[in-house]
Parts: sequence; C-alpha cells; structure tokens
Amino acid sequence: MVKALEWVALPQPALRLLDQTRLPTQEHYIDVTTVDTLVRAIQDLAVRGAPALGGVGALGVVVAMAQGEREAWSSERLAGEIARIRNARPTAVNLAWGVDQVLPAMPRGIPAVLDAAMRLVAEDEAANRELSRLGADWIIARTGKDLVRVLTHCNTGALATTAWGTAYGIIHELHQRQRLEVVHADETRPLLQGSRLTSWELTQDGIPHVVQADSAACSTILRGLVDVAIIGADRIVANGDTANKIGSVALALACQRAQIPFVVAAPSSTIDLATTTGAEIVIEERPPHEVLGLGGLQTSPAGARAFNPAFDVTPHDLIDAIVTERGIVEPATHPDPRLLAEIAG
Amino acid sequence: MVKALEWVALPQPALRLLDQTRLPTQEHYIDVTTVDTLVRAIQDLAVRGAPALGGVGALGVVVAMAQGEREAWSSERLAGEIARIRNARPTAVNLAWGVDQVLPAMPRGIPAVLDAAMRLVAEDEAANRELSRLGADWIIARTGKDLVRVLTHCNTGALATTAWGTAYGIIHELHQRQRLEVVHADETRPLLQGSRLTSWELTQDGIPHVVQADSAACSTILRGLVDVAIIGADRIVANGDTANKIGSVALALACQRAQIPFVVAAPSSTIDLATTTGAEIVIEERPPHEVLGLGGLQTSPAGARAFNPAFDVTPHDLIDAIVTERGIVEPATHPDPRLLAEIAG
Repeated sequence: MVKALEWVALPQPALRLLDQTRLPTQEHYIDVTTVDTLVRAIQDLAVRGAPALGGVGALGVVVAMAQGEREAWSSERLAGEIARIRNARPTAVNLAWGVDQVLPAMPRGIPAVLDAAMRLVAEDEAANRELSRLGADWIIARTGKDLVRVLTHCNTGALATTAWGTAYGIIHELHQRQRLEVVHADETRPLLQGSRLTSWELTQDGIPHVVQADSAACSTILRGLVDVAIIGADRIVANGDTANKIGSVALALACQRAQIPFVVAAPSSTIDLATTTGAEIVIEERPPHEVLGLGGLQTSPAGARAFNPAFDVTPHDLIDAIVTERGIVEPATHPDPRLLAEIAG
Repeated sequence: MVKALEWVALPQPALRLLDQTRLPTQEHYIDVTTVDTLVRAIQDLAVRGAPALGGVGALGVVVAMAQGEREAWSSERLAGEIARIRNARPTAVNLAWGVDQVLPAMPRGIPAVLDAAMRLVAEDEAANRELSRLGADWIIARTGKDLVRVLTHCNTGALATTAWGTAYGIIHELHQRQRLEVVHADETRPLLQGSRLTSWELTQDGIPHVVQADSAACSTILRGLVDVAIIGADRIVANGDTANKIGSVALALACQRAQIPFVVAAPSSTIDLATTTGAEIVIEERPPHEVLGLGGLQTSPAGARAFNPAFDVTPHDLIDAIVTERGIVEPATHPDPRLLAEIAG
C-alpha cells in the first residue's frame, strides 16, 4: 500500500518519507533521522497535503527527541528544533497542529510521544476508511450502477493524507468491492498532482484509469462517460460551500447539467463553521511561473503575466453530498446549515 | 501586424510562413519556394488552423506552378505536386478547399492563380474584420460596459486564420476602440495554443492580458472577473450547437450561471446545415502522448493511459450569440434553426 509517511525501526528508527518530488518517474524514500533533513523535505514538498503534514508534525517531534538524546541537546535546544519543524511551512496549519497534539506526551519520553503520534496517524487513516465506506455506499445507492465510472481532480490519496485517502479513498473502496469500472483523473494543471501523483497511486493500486486534460472534464461528464465526480476539500464552510483545487467547480457545473452526483469527501475536521459562506474564503494566488512554464520549459512569451489562483469555491447548491467519517449531508437537496454543524469535527 | 502567411516578392517570390512550432520563444519565418518545403511545413504544423490552411492551399498552387516553370515540369508532374499539397494533412478539409478554389484560374497562368489566391485570402480577412465589428458592437451593447474584460480559449487569431482572427478579431476590435480592459487567455492544454500562440499575439498587438490554467476559467467567470467569454468554432450545426477546442463548454456552463454572455465567433462558412445536432458530431481523439507529457518531459507514470478528445460540443441553449460576417443569431434566447440557415455561408 502507498504510504507518504511511515515510522520504521530498521535499519534505524526513522520517519520514512516517499519523495513526491521524484514521482512519477522514481520511487525514492528518505529516512529522516535529523531535524535538518525533515525541514528540508517539508520545504522541498517531498511530503505535502494537509493531513499528511499533520502526521509529519507529530512524528517530527519524535525525530527531534531522538536526535536530541543522541547529541545531548539542552531542553532549550530541543524546544527550538521542534519549533523549526512546526514553522517549516508557515501556512500549513496541520503541521503545527500535528506537533501540538503530541507535546503533552513529551514529559513521558520518546515511547509515549511515538505512541501519541502513531495514534494520530491511525485516527486519520480510520476516518478516511470510514468516510470511504460511507461514500461508496451512498454512490452505489444513488447511481444504481453495478460498475461505477468516476471522475476525480487533483490528488486526495495516500500521498496527501497519512494513509488511504479521502475522495481517492472512496475510489479505492469501490475498487475493492469490485464496483469500480474506470477512473478519469484530471491532470490538474499547473502542478499536475493528477498525472504525477493520482495516476501513480492508481497504477500502484492496480485501478483502471485514464489521465485527461482538465479541460476535458466537463465534456467527459456531459457525454455520459462517468457516473459520478468525487473530489476532496480544503475547507467546508457553514452553509456547505467548499473550497478545493482550482478546476473543481467546473466539474460541479457539468454534473448539475448532466444530472449525475457531485461528491465532496473530507474528514469532519475540514468543516469550518466560523466561516459563513464561500464568498468569505480568500483564494490564494500562487507564483506566475507555475502557469507560464512546465519543468523548465517556457510555454509563454517573454514578459507574459499569469493569473494563478490555487483554489476555487463550489457553491453548496451544486454539491449532492459532503461525505465525512461522521456522516453525510446533502446540501443541494437539504440546504440546512444545522445538518453540517451536526457532523463537524 | 501578425501574419501566419503572406506572399512576398523579395528577396524572391515566395510564400512566407511564420513557423508556429518555434513560438513563443522564436519568431522565425520560412520562405517557401518548393513543394517539398511546403508539405513539410504543413505536416510539421509550422502553419495550422483551418482558415489559414485554406490560404496555404491556394497560395501553394502558385508555389508549385513557379517551381514547375523553373524546373520545366510536365503537366502531369505539376498535377501530382499540387495533389501532394492538397493531401498534406488528410483531415484538413480547408487545405483541399483552398487548392480547389484557384484551380480554375490555372489555364490563365501564374498571375491569374496568384490573383485568385490573394482574393481568397483577402475575403477571409474581410469576413473576419466584419464579424469582429459586429461582435464588438453586440458585446458593448449587451454588457453595457465602458471597458470590457474578456475570457478566451485556444487560438483564434491571425495565426489560425489568413489574417486578423475570429474570436481574437473581436478582442482586437474592442482594443482598437479602446473598449477593452484585459483578456484572460486559457493556456489550452494539451497543446498550449493559448499560452504559446494567443499570448504571443496579444503581446505583439500590445493587448493587456493574463495567461491562466484552463481549470481557472470557470472560477474566473463565477468570481465576476470577466464580462464575456468569446471563443471560435470548428463547426456550427443546424440547431446552433457548436464544436470547438476541448474546454469550451466549461466556459459556457459558467457563463450561464454567472449570467454573462457566451459568444461564438466564426465565418459563416463554418455553419454546417447538413448536421442536425451536436450529438452527431464525431469527436476526434488525439494521441495520448500529448496529455502524458509536455515538451519531452514525462508527467505521468510509465504505462499510464490517456483520454485525449480534441473538441467538445456546446449546446445551443448555452450560447448567447453566434457571430458571423453575415450577421448574428442568439440561440439561447431565439432557438429557431431558420435564423441560422439565413446567415449560413
């Protein structure tokens, strides 16, 4: 099974990371035993994805404590090194959250912290597996299909989480139940998480799929080539609007016209009741070079400017199901914010 | 002004082609004086775009006749060489059409054929300029904006036509009238006609613009960042459904939701009354490698399959205006096929 991160005992106790910068052409692992190596791996995006970074933060504390023991650090030095991990990517709140979750165990020593970190990782995986079961049940019931054809966008698999995945987890669950026919995976420009990472995971898991340009998604849906679209979420706000990778809302618009379900899958911790509607979500803009070229190749004329929003917002009336490990709500048919509040993590 | 093709007298009589394979990084011209060079240029996609290939076919007959005169070809040899041009890209019907348009002038010699070819080119440019005027008038009236913000997809400019362009022509016209604020140009994966060609043309013409991932288009429209989307068409069928570059229908869906106009611009010759609805249009699938990589860089895992449809169909109820040089029809509000038949070329 694909693992973005794993605690290994041999050849030495280490946090083993799958280096996602080398995918899909190389499967290379980094055994992390020092804080320097860990911070570099986080900053280079060798490991990414909000839930995955939560696990990295928690296990990173173990890495720091073990290095501190070997090198006889003072407690001040240890605290400083843990802070470096916590702040390795300032905007990644899950990283700090993962660190903070295990700090209370520190007085009880390395085994207690490792235990707390492993529990955090296991809980994330358990949530993913549960929402995948619920999501697969819902999709099978709603579509009434023996074999379901799925369209997905970006990467929501084991590489983005501690294990199993969210939207990808539902796909994996359908496949294990022998209820999956094929996956259409959008390549997900500009950073190609779909072709580089999702297609690689689907290949590892032996799941039949095709990669397509993002611009093919609406047409694939309107031509009746898929039965459902399933995506993840970076944020789900109080009225059921969701933010996800740029390109997501196109799928929702096409699903509405084609009258097939549009499904958002995420752990209940993604629900942010403090934000009222999607209009309040600030859309991050990323550097222009991601759009103006690819892999060192210049694809636009010199001097061209780019518009590079990283996320878009899907209005709740286009979302047939929000699937979490604590239950499912159906904003398009039951737009009652209290239903979402009941399952918020 | 950008010219994909041009007949030049100096340093020698030749068909001068802008080599589009080298854009956007190099502006290199090929002076074509032999059939071999011409066929290679067509097959290598140094020149592409249906209306442009019509002009190339017509002027290609002049190239063949001049070479034949220099090299004292028999009339059989000449006919064979012209047939090679006509069939250089079997699916490009405009190439054969352009050749056929000037054949009747052959008995009157090179000057007569050159004259017929130049007339064909001039007529295409005149049609583009007229539809651009009509389209700009319609958009200014409909949006009521002093400065219009436009979203476009793929390349419909001078590089794809004999001159001026279709959807791009309307943008250019708005710019000349000082009624254009900015253009959002979709990069248009997999072949990047938007970032490689449209952004290059916009730069040459001094038109303010940003390049964006195709997946950003719907969000750009829904966030109110543009006032209109304008695209070209490869085919317009009897009920007003249109086929265009993959990704086009996403824009139409978003425009409908955002209640801004979605405009299709094409010469009246693009109207195909023999096809009843868009459902009858066969969607060409192109080679997988276009999606699985870019510029020699492998972006998908080994063994991955791709789905690579080149076009999609936009249903007529999503199209606010079809703009031709012979007039405008409004399928979304007036879905009467007789209106389209009246302006068919």
